[in-house]
Amino acid sequence: MDSSTGKSFQTIGLVGRVGNSMVSDSVLAVERFLSTTKSEIVLETATASIFSEHHYETMEREALGGPCDLVVVVGGDGSILGVARDLAKSQVPIVGVNRGGLGFLADVSPDQIEQKLGSVLAGQYTIDERFLLEARIVREDEFLEGSSALNDVVVHAGTMSRMMDFSLYVDGDLVYEQRSDGLIVSTPTGSTAYSLSAGGPIMHPGLDAMVVVPMFPHTLTSRPLVVRGDSDIKVVIAKTAETPKFSCDSQVDHALKGGDEVHIAKHPHRLNLLYPLGHSFFESCRSKLDWASRLGNG
Amino acid sequence: MDSSTGKSFQTIGLVGRVGNSMVSDSVLAVERFLSTTKSEIVLETATASIFSEHHYETMEREALGGPCDLVVVVGGDGSILGVARDLAKSQVPIVGVNRGGLGFLADVSPDQIEQKLGSVLAGQYTIDERFLLEARIVREDEFLEGSSALNDVVVHAGTMSRMMDFSLYVDGDLVYEQRSDGLIVSTPTGSTAYSLSAGGPIMHPGLDAMVVVPMFPHTLTSRPLVVRGDSDIKVVIAKTAETPKFSCDSQVDHALKGGDEVHIAKHPHRLNLLYPLGHSFFESCRSKLDWASRLGNG
Amino acid sequence: MDSSTGKSFQTIGLVGRVGNSMVSDSVLAVERFLSTTKSEIVLETATASIFSEHHYETMEREALGGPCDLVVVVGGDGSILGVARDLAKSQVPIVGVNRGGLGFLADVSPDQIEQKLGSVLAGQYTIDERFLLEARIVREDEFLEGSSALNDVVVHAGTMSRMMDFSLYVDGDLVYEQRSDGLIVSTPTGSTAYSLSAGGPIMHPGLDAMVVVPMFPHTLTSRPLVVRGDSDIKVVIAKTAETPKFSCDSQVDHALKGGDEVHIAKHPHRLNLLYPLGHSFFESCRSKLDWASRLGNG
Amino acid sequence: MDSSTGKSFQTIGLVGRVGNSMVSDSVLAVERFLSTTKSEIVLETATASIFSEHHYETMEREALGGPCDLVVVVGGDGSILGVARDLAKSQVPIVGVNRGGLGFLADVSPDQIEQKLGSVLAGQYTIDERFLLEARIVREDEFLEGSSALNDVVVHAGTMSRMMDFSLYVDGDLVYEQRSDGLIVSTPTGSTAYSLSAGGPIMHPGLDAMVVVPMFPHTLTSRPLVVRGDSDIKVVIAKTAETPKFSCDSQVDHALKGGDEVHIAKHPHRLNLLYPLGHSFFESCRSKLDWASRLGNG
Repeated sequence: MDSSTGKSFQTIGLVGRVGNSMVSDSVLAVERFLSTTKSEIVLETATASIFSEHHYETMEREALGGPCDLVVVVGGDGSILGVARDLAKSQVPIVGVNRGGLGFLADVSPDQIEQKLGSVLAGQYTIDERFLLEARIVREDEFLEGSSALNDVVVHAGTMSRMMDFSLYVDGDLVYEQRSDGLIVSTPTGSTAYSLSAGGPIMHPGLDAMVVVPMFPHTLTSRPLVVRGDSDIKVVIAKTAETPKFSCDSQVDHALKGGDEVHIAKHPHRLNLLYPLGHSFFESCRSKLDWASRLGNG
Repeated sequence: MDSSTGKSFQTIGLVGRVGNSMVSDSVLAVERFLSTTKSEIVLETATASIFSEHHYETMEREALGGPCDLVVVVGGDGSILGVARDLAKSQVPIVGVNRGGLGFLADVSPDQIEQKLGSVLAGQYTIDERFLLEARIVREDEFLEGSSALNDVVVHAGTMSRMMDFSLYVDGDLVYEQRSDGLIVSTPTGSTAYSLSAGGPIMHPGLDAMVVVPMFPHTLTSRPLVVRGDSDIKVVIAKTAETPKFSCDSQVDHALKGGDEVHIAKHPHRLNLLYPLGHSFFESCRSKLDWASRLGNG
Repeated sequence: MDSSTGKSFQTIGLVGRVGNSMVSDSVLAVERFLSTTKSEIVLETATASIFSEHHYETMEREALGGPCDLVVVVGGDGSILGVARDLAKSQVPIVGVNRGGLGFLADVSPDQIEQKLGSVLAGQYTIDERFLLEARIVREDEFLEGSSALNDVVVHAGTMSRMMDFSLYVDGDLVYEQRSDGLIVSTPTGSTAYSLSAGGPIMHPGLDAMVVVPMFPHTLTSRPLVVRGDSDIKVVIAKTAETPKFSCDSQVDHALKGGDEVHIAKHPHRLNLLYPLGHSFFESCRSKLDWASRLGNG
Repeated sequence: MDSSTGKSFQTIGLVGRVGNSMVSDSVLAVERFLSTTKSEIVLETATASIFSEHHYETMEREALGGPCDLVVVVGGDGSILGVARDLAKSQVPIVGVNRGGLGFLADVSPDQIEQKLGSVLAGQYTIDERFLLEARIVREDEFLEGSSALNDVVVHAGTMSRMMDFSLYVDGDLVYEQRSDGLIVSTPTGSTAYSLSAGGPIMHPGLDAMVVVPMFPHTLTSRPLVVRGDSDIKVVIAKTAETPKFSCDSQVDHALKGGDEVHIAKHPHRLNLLYPLGHSFFESCRSKLDWASRLGNG
């Protein structure tokens, strides 16, 4: 999964969430550092508004994959989710600068920008290939729009504390009919996010698997189900469902209708997530999940 | 909590969910049986539409508590929740006829109508007093509308898989600040319903307690919290919350605004739930929660 | 439950776990402070070995309740469990000095000894009454030995990953027959200890309740069950059980035989746990359970 | 993973747990059926005692893999675990006759013996390859005995409700240091057994993964962890552990010492589990895990 490569980077895209001064500071810090190297910088159009003036080429996010051979994203794991969905097609590697502390996806902290990005430009990095999910709506036997997700696809009743009925199929086999608030289908990447809040297991990023986690199931016997990464997952919404929806990475919502099917499988594109050398998934877990803390009382 | 009493009933209200033929059949069966006794029957106005013709007095549900000294509800635990909220003020005892099998609240099955209601009219019953919750919105230091719940009050983000920030207080003490989909506050009565789906414990109906269950908390350390029944629970919604709401018994929704407080405490009224003799809470659990089933494989 | 009283203390017992230098240091610090007050000091016999020389009266732990009107325990929540079981009979209040940080039971940190114990001696404290459990073996209709517990009584198969069959009764009613590794019956005091590790809810110390938590049940439908504090709990061990046992506070084990019954109910004695003013249960939770930490990744 | 093959079987071993009359009846029924076919029958030595007289060759279980090209095991999933460990080396396919109902491993019910075994002999079957675990003790840098498991390896404190300290490593990387009752390492095959009782996810049998499930962890942040099937798992027991052990499939125990390491990885041998056509893992789940049952009350 991980492999250290020596490839160096010429043209570097820069993306940062606008409207947060800490993010802006770090975007400027990244630009200051990159301008001292031989790299060419391309700014995402929205990100460019952070600069009072600049002389860089700008383009829409989706286009960055064309000229760039590396994209630096400033702003936390949430920002990486969006960039990953938009840029997966281009296969351009992404490295994340976190606003503070360690992230699962954004591993470079603001005070390490020079050192860590310097190492990356010197070829000191690993590429972690993460798969995305593709969710597609089938309505009356016709494929409608599709959508991608790096963390998870959540099929749900739309309104909280209102259950809906649906059937779950894996590779065409019925798994169960369920009444619940919905279902989370998560990649290993997403297994430390919403899926974990719902009781799902942590999955090592190198695992080729998906986990299906029921949300408040109206039965005590439903448990998280881990299936192979190449599985075809189908959720058939009952006709009685009133306002069903699905959400990708808790960022993009799609309305469904009763009777719709949602097909979820691996997306053909992969995210190439770049880490400076020394990144450890379990170290991120220990830091972000507080694996060192202990109970008291006896 | 339970006490066998000999009081007999003169005027009996009859409520059944309209639009379900199984419910209608059982409503008619209850009426047939009651008409062979000395009881006077009063029909809920809506329920009266089930009868092609009849000569009974009809009145709105909320008014039934006036003349009636017993109300028979046909239609499952969900129906009882609504009637309980509407009639708690009047203290009139309620007995439930379930559409099928045992219910936690509706204990009389359709094929037992004559036998079990007969025993009840002969004074063979117990009264189980169940407390309700009252949820009140405080906006800018002013009490707005209130609402009651027999099972649970759910304060939530409004939209699924969108977390909100809030603070929880019990009797004025800060418990925690949390980011999650929301919070379930459940009575013992509700502990076998939505709260259980969310990982809450089962609470014996005789327990004077409430349980607070976090919904998909953005931390691994939050657990269900059981507090005394006379506790004052306060949820302070963050100003950043976009579409917060609270729901009573998953049946009635109230819109909230960022910055609102929701105060939850015991409602002054109690539900007097009437069971024919022989009802056992644990037997209901064994039946409805499948406590007899076992895992296989080794 | 809590009440601030003005009673002052004359004779103070001192107990500390022997063999830990941090505990010894704090025992000596407590003695140094108490010797500057008008209090008379009585040392537990074992604890006296911490002093190279001293002129205090010494007595066995169980006897401390006679002369003392306060007992100071140094050494963490685990130490308080043992002292509580031994001294509950005498009703003497206990205050705990923790080796470090906050404890659920031992609330005074070593660097606060002068200040907090000083306040206590000046009448600035609350008394928290905690109930204990009593577990008694019934073998062939005869009551055998009993045992007390402040946190929990655990009835188990004796050997790990070997299930046993048993039946659970509450107030004489069958709850379920179960195959599992065993059962935890916990007080509110114990609800933040072993019971919590096994998935039990947190119970406010002021709650009059017990929780029954199954250990690795051979069914998916068993959940923690909260019952009233005055309940009689009976566990009937199957005759086929090979090496059943029960444990009190994970500190004292008792061998059982197949066919034995274990009866668990409130112990007639109470622990009077003394806290300096300002103690908050929820603050202990926030500190010890890391309620402030949050997940990352999106 | 599954593949339908046409290979037919000549020599068939027969194994059944002795001392259970239902098992004996089914062993005799299998023999009666096989004797009407051209198959040669070989009896496990112990199993032969079920027959009052017979003319078949007998041999120890471990030797059955030599002459046999199929082994029929009567007696439930538990029996298959033992046979699988003993026969994995020989690669001989195993088919299970369950004492009643569906099993996860033993799929043929007693009343289907003729029909289902007939189909198998006619080449109508699939072979499901299941991997086993190998657990090896390293003491003072030396490999001691090893042991195999089809379901799970459980490393634990030996005595219940006594925690132990240990460190977990995956592929040489520290995962966490933990205080708990122990750790379950389960295959997909074992994910519906003990691991599930402890809160682990269900893993599809076709998944190349292991799950690590903490047992009553002394922290709220530990969750089941799914890693790749080719991972090397190492548990380093603290020197302070008093009576540590590990168990294979809850059937075979091995004593450990404080300071020992337990290395767990895929066993080089595989179990070839034979199912008559039509077997569905999810159908077994629906049946054995009661996935059809639903909660009541609202």
